[in-house]
Amino acid sequence: MCPTAHKVPGTRYFRKYHARSESNLYGEIKVFCGSGSQEVGKEICTYLGLEPGEYDRVQFSNENIFVQLQESVRGQDVYLVQTLCSPVSDNIMELLIMMDTFKRDSAGRITAVIPYLSYARSDKKDQPRVPITARLIADMIQVAGADRYITVDLHSGQIQGFFNIPGDTLSAFYLLSDYLLDLKIEDAVVVTTDLGFAKRARNYANRLNCPLAFVEKRRSTNAESPEMLSMIGDVQDKNVILVDDEVNTAKSVANAVRTVKDRGAKDIYLAFTHAILSGTGVERLASLPIKEIITTNTVPIPEAKRLPNMTILSIAPLLAEVIIRAHEGSSVGQLFDE
Amino acid sequence: MCPTAHKVPGTRYFRKYHARSESNLYGEIKVFCGSGSQEVGKEICTYLGLEPGEYDRVQFSNENIFVQLQESVRGQDVYLVQTLCSPVSDNIMELLIMMDTFKRDSAGRITAVIPYLSYARSDKKDQPRVPITARLIADMIQVAGADRYITVDLHSGQIQGFFNIPGDTLSAFYLLSDYLLDLKIEDAVVVTTDLGFAKRARNYANRLNCPLAFVEKRRSTNAESPEMLSMIGDVQDKNVILVDDEVNTAKSVANAVRTVKDRGAKDIYLAFTHAILSGTGVERLASLPIKEIITTNTVPIPEAKRLPNMTILSIAPLLAEVIIRAHEGSSVGQLFDE
Amino acid sequence: MCPTAHKVPGTRYFRKYHARSESNLYGEIKVFCGSGSQEVGKEICTYLGLEPGEYDRVQFSNENIFVQLQESVRGQDVYLVQTLCSPVSDNIMELLIMMDTFKRDSAGRITAVIPYLSYARSDKKDQPRVPITARLIADMIQVAGADRYITVDLHSGQIQGFFNIPGDTLSAFYLLSDYLLDLKIEDAVVVTTDLGFAKRARNYANRLNCPLAFVEKRRSTNAESPEMLSMIGDVQDKNVILVDDEVNTAKSVANAVRTVKDRGAKDIYLAFTHAILSGTGVERLASLPIKEIITTNTVPIPEAKRLPNMTILSIAPLLAEVIIRAHEGSSVGQLFDE
Amino acid sequence: MCPTAHKVPGTRYFRKYHARSESNLYGEIKVFCGSGSQEVGKEICTYLGLEPGEYDRVQFSNENIFVQLQESVRGQDVYLVQTLCSPVSDNIMELLIMMDTFKRDSAGRITAVIPYLSYARSDKKDQPRVPITARLIADMIQVAGADRYITVDLHSGQIQGFFNIPGDTLSAFYLLSDYLLDLKIEDAVVVTTDLGFAKRARNYANRLNCPLAFVEKRRSTNAESPEMLSMIGDVQDKNVILVDDEVNTAKSVANAVRTVKDRGAKDIYLAFTHAILSGTGVERLASLPIKEIITTNTVPIPEAKRLPNMTILSIAPLLAEVIIRAHEGSSVGQLFDE
Amino acid sequence: MCPTAHKVPGTRYFRKYHARSESNLYGEIKVFCGSGSQEVGKEICTYLGLEPGEYDRVQFSNENIFVQLQESVRGQDVYLVQTLCSPVSDNIMELLIMMDTFKRDSAGRITAVIPYLSYARSDKKDQPRVPITARLIADMIQVAGADRYITVDLHSGQIQGFFNIPGDTLSAFYLLSDYLLDLKIEDAVVVTTDLGFAKRARNYANRLNCPLAFVEKRRSTNAESPEMLSMIGDVQDKNVILVDDEVNTAKSVANAVRTVKDRGAKDIYLAFTHAILSGTGVERLASLPIKEIITTNTVPIPEAKRLPNMTILSIAPLLAEVIIRAHEGSSVGQLFDE
Amino acid sequence: MCPTAHKVPGTRYFRKYHARSESNLYGEIKVFCGSGSQEVGKEICTYLGLEPGEYDRVQFSNENIFVQLQESVRGQDVYLVQTLCSPVSDNIMELLIMMDTFKRDSAGRITAVIPYLSYARSDKKDQPRVPITARLIADMIQVAGADRYITVDLHSGQIQGFFNIPGDTLSAFYLLSDYLLDLKIEDAVVVTTDLGFAKRARNYANRLNCPLAFVEKRRSTNAESPEMLSMIGDVQDKNVILVDDEVNTAKSVANAVRTVKDRGAKDIYLAFTHAILSGTGVERLASLPIKEIITTNTVPIPEAKRLPNMTILSIAPLLAEVIIRAHEGSSVGQLFDE
Repeated sequence: MCPTAHKVPGTRYFRKYHARSESNLYGEIKVFCGSGSQEVGKEICTYLGLEPGEYDRVQFSNENIFVQLQESVRGQDVYLVQTLCSPVSDNIMELLIMMDTFKRDSAGRITAVIPYLSYARSDKKDQPRVPITARLIADMIQVAGADRYITVDLHSGQIQGFFNIPGDTLSAFYLLSDYLLDLKIEDAVVVTTDLGFAKRARNYANRLNCPLAFVEKRRSTNAESPEMLSMIGDVQDKNVILVDDEVNTAKSVANAVRTVKDRGAKDIYLAFTHAILSGTGVERLASLPIKEIITTNTVPIPEAKRLPNMTILSIAPLLAEVIIRAHEGSSVGQLFDE
Repeated sequence: MCPTAHKVPGTRYFRKYHARSESNLYGEIKVFCGSGSQEVGKEICTYLGLEPGEYDRVQFSNENIFVQLQESVRGQDVYLVQTLCSPVSDNIMELLIMMDTFKRDSAGRITAVIPYLSYARSDKKDQPRVPITARLIADMIQVAGADRYITVDLHSGQIQGFFNIPGDTLSAFYLLSDYLLDLKIEDAVVVTTDLGFAKRARNYANRLNCPLAFVEKRRSTNAESPEMLSMIGDVQDKNVILVDDEVNTAKSVANAVRTVKDRGAKDIYLAFTHAILSGTGVERLASLPIKEIITTNTVPIPEAKRLPNMTILSIAPLLAEVIIRAHEGSSVGQLFDE
Repeated sequence: MCPTAHKVPGTRYFRKYHARSESNLYGEIKVFCGSGSQEVGKEICTYLGLEPGEYDRVQFSNENIFVQLQESVRGQDVYLVQTLCSPVSDNIMELLIMMDTFKRDSAGRITAVIPYLSYARSDKKDQPRVPITARLIADMIQVAGADRYITVDLHSGQIQGFFNIPGDTLSAFYLLSDYLLDLKIEDAVVVTTDLGFAKRARNYANRLNCPLAFVEKRRSTNAESPEMLSMIGDVQDKNVILVDDEVNTAKSVANAVRTVKDRGAKDIYLAFTHAILSGTGVERLASLPIKEIITTNTVPIPEAKRLPNMTILSIAPLLAEVIIRAHEGSSVGQLFDE
Repeated sequence: MCPTAHKVPGTRYFRKYHARSESNLYGEIKVFCGSGSQEVGKEICTYLGLEPGEYDRVQFSNENIFVQLQESVRGQDVYLVQTLCSPVSDNIMELLIMMDTFKRDSAGRITAVIPYLSYARSDKKDQPRVPITARLIADMIQVAGADRYITVDLHSGQIQGFFNIPGDTLSAFYLLSDYLLDLKIEDAVVVTTDLGFAKRARNYANRLNCPLAFVEKRRSTNAESPEMLSMIGDVQDKNVILVDDEVNTAKSVANAVRTVKDRGAKDIYLAFTHAILSGTGVERLASLPIKEIITTNTVPIPEAKRLPNMTILSIAPLLAEVIIRAHEGSSVGQLFDE
Repeated sequence: MCPTAHKVPGTRYFRKYHARSESNLYGEIKVFCGSGSQEVGKEICTYLGLEPGEYDRVQFSNENIFVQLQESVRGQDVYLVQTLCSPVSDNIMELLIMMDTFKRDSAGRITAVIPYLSYARSDKKDQPRVPITARLIADMIQVAGADRYITVDLHSGQIQGFFNIPGDTLSAFYLLSDYLLDLKIEDAVVVTTDLGFAKRARNYANRLNCPLAFVEKRRSTNAESPEMLSMIGDVQDKNVILVDDEVNTAKSVANAVRTVKDRGAKDIYLAFTHAILSGTGVERLASLPIKEIITTNTVPIPEAKRLPNMTILSIAPLLAEVIIRAHEGSSVGQLFDE
Repeated sequence: MCPTAHKVPGTRYFRKYHARSESNLYGEIKVFCGSGSQEVGKEICTYLGLEPGEYDRVQFSNENIFVQLQESVRGQDVYLVQTLCSPVSDNIMELLIMMDTFKRDSAGRITAVIPYLSYARSDKKDQPRVPITARLIADMIQVAGADRYITVDLHSGQIQGFFNIPGDTLSAFYLLSDYLLDLKIEDAVVVTTDLGFAKRARNYANRLNCPLAFVEKRRSTNAESPEMLSMIGDVQDKNVILVDDEVNTAKSVANAVRTVKDRGAKDIYLAFTHAILSGTGVERLASLPIKEIITTNTVPIPEAKRLPNMTILSIAPLLAEVIIRAHEGSSVGQLFDE
């Protein structure tokens, strides 16, 4: 390893400065920062040594969103960074309208960089007469003109199959688990409250080399404490690392914290990728006996929602590296080879 | 004409009660009323003698919209009435999610009934590097699963060509002009402020058998009153009927009223189809010396926005008639044969 | 409940004989039985009171599959029952070729009834540079001409979103859990060996009103028995019900049986939908101390693979009911309303 | 501005010779000249310093059109210049057949350069049971294999939205208005006879800094001269500049000339982009008291149709500049920045 | 066979009058007769007991074709009969425009009935850099809105595979061969001049129970008569039946006639489906020593082209029968079961 | 011709070493060798001076095929060589799965190189209610992600029109006919047994400058030898060159050999492109009095099937040359200019 190389956060990869090749298979890189991703977008641009693409964005009094690019993208390799955070419907519309604008300005290639893909929990018909909105979103992104997409920690990996265009689905797993490893938590146990996250929880347990347990969303069968949730596995006298993909109202987190505390857990850590934190989510988190909350900036977290025990890791270097590789036509998988 | 027939408002057609045929080429009619069109949707159902389709609609704290039909639409002829009024982006998302839900519940045929199609002014690239959002909306409606659409007074008729599915684009022209004829306004002149509406303004002038004039959105070349807009045609001592397709902030209306007053107009009437009235639109209208404002309910007008001089004609009978004909496979054009 | 009604196995529904309506929105029902589903297909036809559609199927010496329908399907409502069991690639090709044949013979509507959808485990890119073959299969079925699909217990529910055509994804959950309830197993615990099946395992535990435990595919951290798999939850002195969606080589089952036995389990039951049982799967199952194996005939189980302790429940009545409802345009969800 | 730069006619842009970059994102430029655009196509090639692409074009006695390229376009950036003038149907077929030929010869990118898009007036359903042929043409061009299109002065800008591929819709507005400005016409008034052209007429009035008036296609309400058309606005003692997008039979022009003369107009100029001039159009124009007719060569004007008072401005430099920019991936909008 | 049954010409089928079922899966039949098929279309309507659908068709002086239906086709089962004869490009455009009109008027199902499909000889790339225009035509028909097609004797059967919509490709084989059988020609030999027609020529030879021979389009290797074409097989003292799918300029026919005469043939008959007869085709046929020319009316043959020795068999009953069966959803193959 | 040039087998082209240009319009060439084309694929790689692309290919015990690329193809110009030989269905599935894998790994361009396209005889509906499987295969290849295809000697040229993506359909005609010319066979006659191959047989006859004859698949009308096939043309005392596109069970070949021998033929040569040789094809060929069998390696011929009188010409140089030209964007047609 040469001394000028530094490890890119969230990857297994060491970048040497000035290593960028001169290839331009798809024109020049242009990165535009959508309304939902102003900060993370600019961080990506800084990493890439580029100015963000300039465009006007107006929402008229009739709520119609209008955009106009202030620079031509004709024949260029265009990336729009736009997370689907609040206001969700407006951000979806803006994403689609930007795709259409790029397409009609004859962009060479268009990539939607969506750090957080909303509606990902609507990914199957698990009851009759409901939509699969995540597939609808995927279709809309394609029909609007995207040639590729880049996203982070989809609620279910299968959503990749909702797209017919190629894409890179990244994970904050290394970012979060590297941080947790550095904390050197003893007697740890990984706990998840969503059984649908069980497999990914095991990956954390594997990497942190510790056991795994589940909080089950069923009332306890124990007659003495009927309100307590069931627990599968053991947390007695252990430091609990709660893991999940996203935290929204934090109700499940609160239930899990109460349950593991009740079962004799010591310190509690909470690690997750997407900090939606809508409604009273932040208040609830603030009220819980959690030692440290580790999350990322896939969704912007306004100052008011940043709790004292919250650590926010930036996803930007990871996204920027993937953009470089997508542009140059080199391997993305290589970023994660241990 | 038999005595039991009544003229359907906004059409040239006389309906005899109990005339509905028993044909069911496409299963049974099911009409669902979207969030944007609760009232007009129910009015349509009443006209058709049907109960509105039942469904749950939730918007979670993360702003994701979720729907579940409370009755099966398998094999049925489904109509969703959903106007694209405020909140515009949410209403678009709901429209698309409903289409996906109907499709995945194996509806026989799905028709999007959109009394007001938002984004219709974004229908061409009249400056560089802008989107054509109306085409995007049309594509999204199709990709979500609509087989047909019904809409009213598109900003430009060409938007019909943005759809590849068949559709019925209706007009409130007869509804509004019938009403104006009944007012028996003397010495009338039809005036429009938007040159893009010139051809349709002439249709009004033709039907009302009166002359036509334009307010041009240019400063007057008359040095004496530099702030006054130019006017093409004559309004001196005439009763002015201002016509347009939609009124939003009412700035153009205010300019037109000021201009025609300045040129010696007497009474002023304002007739238009879509009452968007966002921002301070209603306040501005209230402040103008307009004798009567005639519009429709393609967009719901809350109590607070209903001015004393405002007449709201219902578009529901017209939409209901077209739904009957679409369902039975009989002519819609016939509704408008004079 | 009238005395002539019987409960349709695997549903919550009581059918009265002769209840079939005369509706024929989509022409007459025609059911064809593909090579993979000769038996279950004929059982469906018997339930429906129909003769299977006649067709010739030849595989030439150059391995090309050729079919010719012996009756016209012009304008009819056609169902092909074809499970994707061994020989898998040939059965996929036959399915697609049949779809093309129906389409080109101008069928009114074509439904692919696929009791077991192969390749369903290839449903996401969980490592770099791999395919999502399940999406490819879905695309192929659509491009070949299917208008709808019916299938049973997909490996992941999200695969429904790989299809853009409507479909009915059924489950053998009621069929299997009704049977298990009838067994009245005391001190039961539901155990699953695949963490990806955790949520559905909980549904079994809920319905059987018993606790849940997991065998984790990690070496035990217990130094004394390093080969033993970890276990989360308790099975000591309990009767274990192992549940899964499919059993193929039965290696996971064998590991789970060994682990729960080692942890003090009493009787072991195994319940799963799809009996692939390739390679030495049957031999392995035969060698394990399992009291009863409960499965279905979504995949044909040849005589030689039927173990003495194996109970095979038929999926045919459930599929036949759904076909009736798809044909008549009535609710499928209603079949499962408790 | 360096002394070697010259202003490209019809743009705001000054080109320095030898400025062409060496970029070849899409292979080499190849320009083919279709039957409808032999002359303008060759002019473009001369501007670009290229030989036209060689191909054979035969129309057999059964009227089938057959083409064969005499040079490979594999991997190249191909432009077909083909206006849709008479014989219209044959020229459409040739355009489509050429697209298919380029596609099947594996062209790198295919651009249809269509100076005049026929059928553009069939752009909406303004009466029942009529086609939208312009959308059909757009679909056909796409299905035949075009990746992009370039065209001039569409009858309505919305036709851009009929295409899903990107395109450049240019305008002869600067070409024509620059010429008119050079004429230094005093006491000018811009008049249009088609209310659908009202907005673009205002652009001319703006740029020429003069008032605007309309001839309305209604009989005058003035009882004394019942055959005269109505006029909105004033032309008395003014020099009239009639503007339109295309002139075909010149009937509207004749009516307008008669009307403005009747209202006291002095000199009459006629400016329009597309000189279709079918039937007796030229004879009619020749008979009218028009001082100068200014048009372009988007449609070839044979010697016999060139009137003594006709000025034909070439659209070729504008098209050639746009081709350069499309090829190099630089801004087209920049051509028109004033 | 009941006495009221008559054999439908060109089929193996006997129709009993009044046998039409009351089924209307797809609405009512509506048959429109395009410009190219006025006569055969009306003959079909007479057979079906229907009035042709009414529509206006105008070709403006700018050559644009405009249509307007005079009756609604909403929800109906619409058939357009339009052969692609001269003027070929106009007839193609009219076909496509009619499809678009039907689609936008919400027809229930649209079938293009194309007795002669032009451009069928452009069906493969047999030299570099040529189009496959027949595929282009198929794509255009689909994109314009056709749901099905019906055609007669495609130049190559593979063109069916160019369509993705279902279709019925009929043959005049029985019509022509029944007629030839009735002629009871002795010592017959079937001869074809196009080796690509060899297989179908054998079908004629089989049905007429006579030998087969070929005229090869190569100069004879016989040094004595260098201009004579080669012949494979024997025609000496035989009555020759020349068969082909279409005759256009009749050059090949002339060569064949000369060659077989030179080889000692006696009487010559010529049978073919499509009488294109462009250029000097008819004059050439008139000059040849052919005893009888048997053809059909898939292409209209104007009075002036009808030679005294020409027998024109009508394809209309065959097309009408297929339309009945397509409408009722019954077997078309059954028409040809011997 | 410079001394370093060598003629590329099967083309008219002389290649000078080191002539490859440095163009990389589509990234770098990557050639992957599918299971069906291991040998010919490696031969191509050797010709190109490349290592084959590395990938893992597993077929699990449930017969599911799984692949994982061992190197990234992001942005590269990827070629998969995969012939559709036995096991046919598995090889088709592997081809499609590889396409999906390349697409989802963001390949720059994907070309399916299919030396032998199976199912090509199922290319039309020549009887009722049969599929057109060749079109289905073409659609599947496209839907899986191929941008282009390269193939050799399609059963019918029209299959090119089944693809909507561009492709290069090559022929072994020069390879085989060059070899035959070198044999200097005297008194030769080209004979084909399949009338559908008649036109291509004539091309051989032309190039070898000899006459042509046909074995007809009808019983002889000669009463004396009723089992003998008819023959059209003369083979008495001639050396027969039997030509075809593929030989499978060799039944037609055996019939043809018997027939020409019976008619007095001397030596018999057999030349064809695709050596399928399934079932007892090789045994049958071995038993026939054929002097030399000339074929190619479009399909791998295992050692056991190589007869002593069999000459196998390699198609690899031809495919490799076309890959070079496809990659560089230069003419393929030029390879065959004589």
